[in-house]
Amino acid sequence: MALFRQAGRKIVAVGRNYAEHAKELGNALPSQPLFFLKPTSSYLSMPQPIALPRGIGEIHHEIELGIVIGSAATNVSETDAMSHVAGYALCLDMTARDLQDTAKANRAPWSAAKGYDGFCPVGEFIPKERVTDPHALDIWLKVNGAMRQNGNTSDMIFRLPFLISYISKIMTLEPNDLVLTGTPSGVGRVQAGDVLTAGLGASGTVLSEISFNVVDRDY
Amino acid sequence: MALFRQAGRKIVAVGRNYAEHAKELGNALPSQPLFFLKPTSSYLSMPQPIALPRGIGEIHHEIELGIVIGSAATNVSETDAMSHVAGYALCLDMTARDLQDTAKANRAPWSAAKGYDGFCPVGEFIPKERVTDPHALDIWLKVNGAMRQNGNTSDMIFRLPFLISYISKIMTLEPNDLVLTGTPSGVGRVQAGDVLTAGLGASGTVLSEISFNVVDRDY
Ligand SMILES: [Mg+2]
Ligand SMILES: [Mg+2]
Ligand SMILES: [Mg+2]
Repeated sequence: MALFRQAGRKIVAVGRNYAEHAKELGNALPSQPLFFLKPTSSYLSMPQPIALPRGIGEIHHEIELGIVIGSAATNVSETDAMSHVAGYALCLDMTARDLQDTAKANRAPWSAAKGYDGFCPVGEFIPKERVTDPHALDIWLKVNGAMRQNGNTSDMIFRLPFLISYISKIMTLEPNDLVLTGTPSGVGRVQAGDVLTAGLGASGTVLSEISFNVVDRDY
Repeated sequence: MALFRQAGRKIVAVGRNYAEHAKELGNALPSQPLFFLKPTSSYLSMPQPIALPRGIGEIHHEIELGIVIGSAATNVSETDAMSHVAGYALCLDMTARDLQDTAKANRAPWSAAKGYDGFCPVGEFIPKERVTDPHALDIWLKVNGAMRQNGNTSDMIFRLPFLISYISKIMTLEPNDLVLTGTPSGVGRVQAGDVLTAGLGASGTVLSEISFNVVDRDY
């Protein structure tokens, strides 16, 4: 599953899964998971830069723990869910926030706001054996060296077994699919010239680090 | 591209692209294309039945012309767009209408409402050489032998070159990706026991016919 980015056919992204983040965007806490799809054409890996489309308003960083699926999961129980996990990845759910706000106001899909090329930068595959407890991970993001998001996966509203079970009752999760599990508070704007650095770890051990330069693109 | 269903990584579905259909759902005509993503895990082909999840309210048929992409399209012009088309397929954009209405009311994504397993039944690949004019195709759907949707692709609001160009400026269209181009009026409920038959053709020539039985599923 080290090549999930090339082989995967689906990115399922959960929204509003940290209470502080739901509040900062003025959203109510969800009573059940809310999710959307990002296209696999939005994958990006180092050293490619994040290229911001011009003229679409604010674009935000959302640092997230990604789950890489190892075996097909259809209608699986919470008890069985984690056996379908191959590992993890540190991911950015880049979001055209103004377009997303417009989509919401128009009761329209979020797919464009979440789906531009390069809007899913990801780090290396982390085999699950390296992660003792996926619900006790520090996850942080800095913009130009300044800490902007600094959370812990213990603060998730819906935990991984519940998310996997819930999604698998709607759509089959297939090997190499990626599930983004929501972002902690502190989301904010990125602009050309910024450098985004982010990390995932537990009690001093670094599991993944990523770094992306931000540039403009001309269309 | 005959195996687009197995190889494709993305289904981009355009909504409200026929004026009569936008009206029947009480939606304004769009000033630019509206689109969402369906997961490739929703593909279904004959003779598999369409299995309806229980307890999610009304599920509707939407018969649509699908475009199968033949070569990568990033920021392509309308003039160049059709050179990236490999062919076509007759497709159903199955929709959990009550869930979609709830999502709209909550300003939430449509991904679940559009993304259940089996919610994208498709027919055989039609090479583009067999289609003289994709904007002059009869497209129809019957439920239990009674005509419910009977349109022509000449009534699209946004035509294929515009749709492909528009989407390609947001997300790269890759070989074997599928673009659904919207449904004509006449959408309606399907229930277990129904038989859906549909066709695509031009001046008496049948390009594709599909037939799907509808059953319940237990989760
Ligand atoms: Mg959506
Ligand atoms: Mg997010
Ligand atoms: Mg449709």
